[in-house]
Amino acid sequence: MSQTVVIIGGGVAGLSAAGRLRDFGYDVVLIEKESQVGGYVKNWYKVFPDFTPGSEIVDRLKQDLRGTEILTDCSVEKIEGDAPNFRVITSTGKEIAANAILVATGFRHFDATFKEEYGYGLYDNTITSIDFDAMLKQKQVRTAAGKIPKKVAMVHCVGSRDQQVNNNYCSRVCCTNSVKVSISLKELLPDCEVFSLYMDIRVFGRGYEELYRQSQEEYGVQFIRGRLSEASEQNDGSLLLRVEDTLTSRPMRLTVDLLVLMVGMSGNSELSEVAGLKTGVDRFYETAHQQYANNASHRQGIFLAGTATGPKAIVESITDGRSAAADIAGFLATSARMTEGNGSSQQRFPTMELSNLGGRT
Amino acid sequence: MSQTVVIIGGGVAGLSAAGRLRDFGYDVVLIEKESQVGGYVKNWYKVFPDFTPGSEIVDRLKQDLRGTEILTDCSVEKIEGDAPNFRVITSTGKEIAANAILVATGFRHFDATFKEEYGYGLYDNTITSIDFDAMLKQKQVRTAAGKIPKKVAMVHCVGSRDQQVNNNYCSRVCCTNSVKVSISLKELLPDCEVFSLYMDIRVFGRGYEELYRQSQEEYGVQFIRGRLSEASEQNDGSLLLRVEDTLTSRPMRLTVDLLVLMVGMSGNSELSEVAGLKTGVDRFYETAHQQYANNASHRQGIFLAGTATGPKAIVESITDGRSAAADIAGFLATSARMTEGNGSSQQRFPTMELSNLGGRT
Repeated sequence: MSQTVVIIGGGVAGLSAAGRLRDFGYDVVLIEKESQVGGYVKNWYKVFPDFTPGSEIVDRLKQDLRGTEILTDCSVEKIEGDAPNFRVITSTGKEIAANAILVATGFRHFDATFKEEYGYGLYDNTITSIDFDAMLKQKQVRTAAGKIPKKVAMVHCVGSRDQQVNNNYCSRVCCTNSVKVSISLKELLPDCEVFSLYMDIRVFGRGYEELYRQSQEEYGVQFIRGRLSEASEQNDGSLLLRVEDTLTSRPMRLTVDLLVLMVGMSGNSELSEVAGLKTGVDRFYETAHQQYANNASHRQGIFLAGTATGPKAIVESITDGRSAAADIAGFLATSARMTEGNGSSQQRFPTMELSNLGGRT
Repeated sequence: MSQTVVIIGGGVAGLSAAGRLRDFGYDVVLIEKESQVGGYVKNWYKVFPDFTPGSEIVDRLKQDLRGTEILTDCSVEKIEGDAPNFRVITSTGKEIAANAILVATGFRHFDATFKEEYGYGLYDNTITSIDFDAMLKQKQVRTAAGKIPKKVAMVHCVGSRDQQVNNNYCSRVCCTNSVKVSISLKELLPDCEVFSLYMDIRVFGRGYEELYRQSQEEYGVQFIRGRLSEASEQNDGSLLLRVEDTLTSRPMRLTVDLLVLMVGMSGNSELSEVAGLKTGVDRFYETAHQQYANNASHRQGIFLAGTATGPKAIVESITDGRSAAADIAGFLATSARMTEGNGSSQQRFPTMELSNLGGRT
């Protein structure tokens, strides 16, 4: 009898998990609420630090899917039963018998209108990093009036590390994303001055620090350590920024043509009730253990991957998806062997000696 | 016929990969150069951000190993052949037929004696973060003369982000490690003043920022943005630190009883010739693609995991090991199916439709 894994969410974590689970020969049903898989990544212009186009990453992950059943425009309404005999009921009325479930439902972008003082939704030239990425992809960075900007400011930590909006955590990717889009902007408009308003530059990953240096030394991006307190619109549509420069300890004023808000990640916990999952104080899903069981939920047979459990870079989400696939396959192989023998399939005993299954050919 | 995976390196990445590959039924031979598996983690007192003891993590990973053949006090001298038919020859003269190889050889700590101006090896009270962790584990934080320190400074970025020592990259974990050991120190010695000299506080992971806040608000750890330029020993064994405070733009002097150098990670590329692996400019192993093939090397059948490919936190190394296990199992399942059919086992065609193997029970 074949075993089925239901994956909820077709972003890069869900896709990478599906690819590996298909390699192992499991039946995989991938449920995606949008009309296409690929999550946010399919839309991104180029990703840091290597400037791979977002669509290339999604295309490569899709190549591994062979035979995955994909349900688009579909969400999960109910999960019945327990591991390894779940029944997943979708918004389209489909019922799927699943032996394990992966929740890879990703994140939501922080809603920039909550930072009223920056003027998103009020001022024409205050835009988000998502809007800005789309401009770069079109190779058309323009003000609302259609002019080529002479000065652009990137504001870090919008919706991150900010007690005011009840998001204490760091969103992990915005700093490096800001460095990357600043370089892309300077390549497109070499005469444009670019200012990056930051708290700490968190470029911690492989190649990130080097990109940060390059942005300064080769492209002349100007980094200002300070928090933007307020933006106000002027008659010509430009924006006057009031910044506390924490390096020189002086208040600073800066006028720019475009203000780009680097919006952070918010938890997407819409399945918490349906799947019986707990969320942490940061409103991302809680894992069974933060060190050695970071792809397991508190519920047996339900696994977690990608930004569902916290902010992650793209490669980190892909790795996390594959790690979850390994955990799921381990769980299923073990529970199948237990069912064949005398053991109960409800409990996994990690220390017992088991006969080979998947590794024999 | 069973398939065998050789894992080189028994740190948390190698252990977590071995556990999953055993779940899948592969024969696994783990080669560890030391007398025990567990790498650095087995020695750590408690790890960030959740203060799990290092030994607990290693014990949990070891529970999954069931039936893994472990060769300790052993290293790899030669790798002959090509995927999926390698021959691995060890320092003990053993020859192992392997269908795939995982290189999980980890990192080396930056050698603090290269930063002569900080006095490691010269001054009795300049110690590394490794020495300090051992003191915390013993619950005996003392100066060389055996006194309880009243002032302790942590210096971030020792061997990281430092052109002088040819390490441009960020070591990713030292900031959060510093926050964590500062809390442990304040719990042990509440009256001790703790100073943390940093460039940017890179506490980017889940729960890290919260820990950073807690260290300030609850424990009173003092963070000073500045680079230590020099330490000099005084008659009483205390250390005079010259710091450029980059927030107030003033030179600063600070006397402490203990100076803790948060040493970064250096690449361990000792297998590059033996395994035919490339290293990046950062001297960690290069992966096949930084986004979608980050556990593959440029050589088919040889995979990479953990800090062999760059600095990583413990949970990140565990996840990376499991992701590599998934990639290896996918590779082996696919090449086995190709051998059964007409295809060549030398090349994996990710887009072809394959019959089920591991997932059928």
